[in-house]
Amino acid sequence: MTPPGPLSLNTVTVRDAWTLAQCIEGCARHGIPGISPWRDRLAELGVAAAARHLRDAGLHVTGLCRGGLFPAADATGRAAAIDDNRRAIAEAHAIGADCLVVLGGGLPPGSKDLPGARAMFHDGLAAVLPDARAAGVTLALEPLHPMTCADRSVLSTLAQALDLCDELGPGLGVAVDVYHVWWDPDLARQIARAGPRIAAFHVCDWLVPTIDLVFDRGMMGDGVIDIAGVRAMVEAAGWQGGVEAEILSRRWWAADPDAVLRLVKQRHAAC
Amino acid sequence: MTPPGPLSLNTVTVRDAWTLAQCIEGCARHGIPGISPWRDRLAELGVAAAARHLRDAGLHVTGLCRGGLFPAADATGRAAAIDDNRRAIAEAHAIGADCLVVLGGGLPPGSKDLPGARAMFHDGLAAVLPDARAAGVTLALEPLHPMTCADRSVLSTLAQALDLCDELGPGLGVAVDVYHVWWDPDLARQIARAGPRIAAFHVCDWLVPTIDLVFDRGMMGDGVIDIAGVRAMVEAAGWQGGVEAEILSRRWWAADPDAVLRLVKQRHAAC
Repeated sequence: MTPPGPLSLNTVTVRDAWTLAQCIEGCARHGIPGISPWRDRLAELGVAAAARHLRDAGLHVTGLCRGGLFPAADATGRAAAIDDNRRAIAEAHAIGADCLVVLGGGLPPGSKDLPGARAMFHDGLAAVLPDARAAGVTLALEPLHPMTCADRSVLSTLAQALDLCDELGPGLGVAVDVYHVWWDPDLARQIARAGPRIAAFHVCDWLVPTIDLVFDRGMMGDGVIDIAGVRAMVEAAGWQGGVEAEILSRRWWAADPDAVLRLVKQRHAAC
Repeated sequence: MTPPGPLSLNTVTVRDAWTLAQCIEGCARHGIPGISPWRDRLAELGVAAAARHLRDAGLHVTGLCRGGLFPAADATGRAAAIDDNRRAIAEAHAIGADCLVVLGGGLPPGSKDLPGARAMFHDGLAAVLPDARAAGVTLALEPLHPMTCADRSVLSTLAQALDLCDELGPGLGVAVDVYHVWWDPDLARQIARAGPRIAAFHVCDWLVPTIDLVFDRGMMGDGVIDIAGVRAMVEAAGWQGGVEAEILSRRWWAADPDAVLRLVKQRHAAC
């Protein structure tokens, strides 16, 4: 097994403890060469200031979280999501991010129309894709685990994301997060199909038991995902980028962030 | 929309309150024509006595829960699972069940080898299929929601279940439970593919938020699943059987079982 590509810290991993500026300092202190910020933390610091900090720190920005979330109850809401994605694309460009991570969004409140919500996602994506192409920003479609389908992501599988890539064409890619796809019986085939469209590779782990559908992700190595196996698949598909650690976890949010970064580094080296 | 097929009570819906004998009486009292017992409750009453009670009550037994669960840490465990499935097949035959519901089982403790666990499921199924054929008992492969993959079901999608049906042949079918498959982007196509192999149709609902990965299923109508839409799909595929209500829920287990049965009847009529 080859050693893993360079580590990137998704800032949500230390969401409650650190601002973006602190995350940038933390990466420098721990020798972590990559970072992937969330937009709320970017807004706090200001996009221009953040771009300067990131550049001065020499950090590789592996992604910006997050765009998408197109389904909405009415046309006004859908237009607002499209506008917001245009801003997100501009922000991703400004900070030199490898991609904008794009999430499906859930069903509009009160709706049971899943095909309808998926059509809204398709249409919103088609609306902002020209902006992404013009800015040179790859939109990385990230399917989330099916347990989030109702309220967070009607984009549920790599196959579904790649069908959208096939249909809508250049400017789109996929973000492969082991947490969201490890269970998929079709995983090996879809990763091979993705090939050069893999735009991000995220890791954490699936805990047994998992006690929360959103905020109980595990530190790499603490769960049951064969992370090295999935990494071998994405590398066989041509992925030469790094490994972004993204751990949404009440447990780790309550821990000392420097200790979390040390452990992330150890576990990254191990798997 | 045609009215739904006849209602069946999966006894886990009132798991904590009623024995199988009480469930049989409850179905008679509420005019519910079908029932699907779990094996632990069957064992309490005794298989022969249960078969007699069920027949005397004129109940249609839409399934027996549950067989499968083949993955195990060692050969002894795998052989024990196969033996237990042979007993389950005999029990399903004895009570005249339409099918034995077969679950994937989770990863063996400590294992990260998901393809390996899936191979164990395949091999266990192949081992007991001749017994099922000899007994005239359909093995209904029930994919469970991917959030159960680690510890309950390495059988995750209808596509995966139907691939096994294709490979292993007659005697196998699928159990379509809306809770487990509603999110699947490939749902319509896989239900059409299933056709006459649909051996059971289970309903409950997906709540927002869902606060437990196993025991927080919703009463039909309380969540976001388009149950009528999925029913239309299975009926278009040729399903002429009934609708089995199977609600694993700490909330409803704490409620008065007669009130639960009244509500199940109302909601069944409505969707």
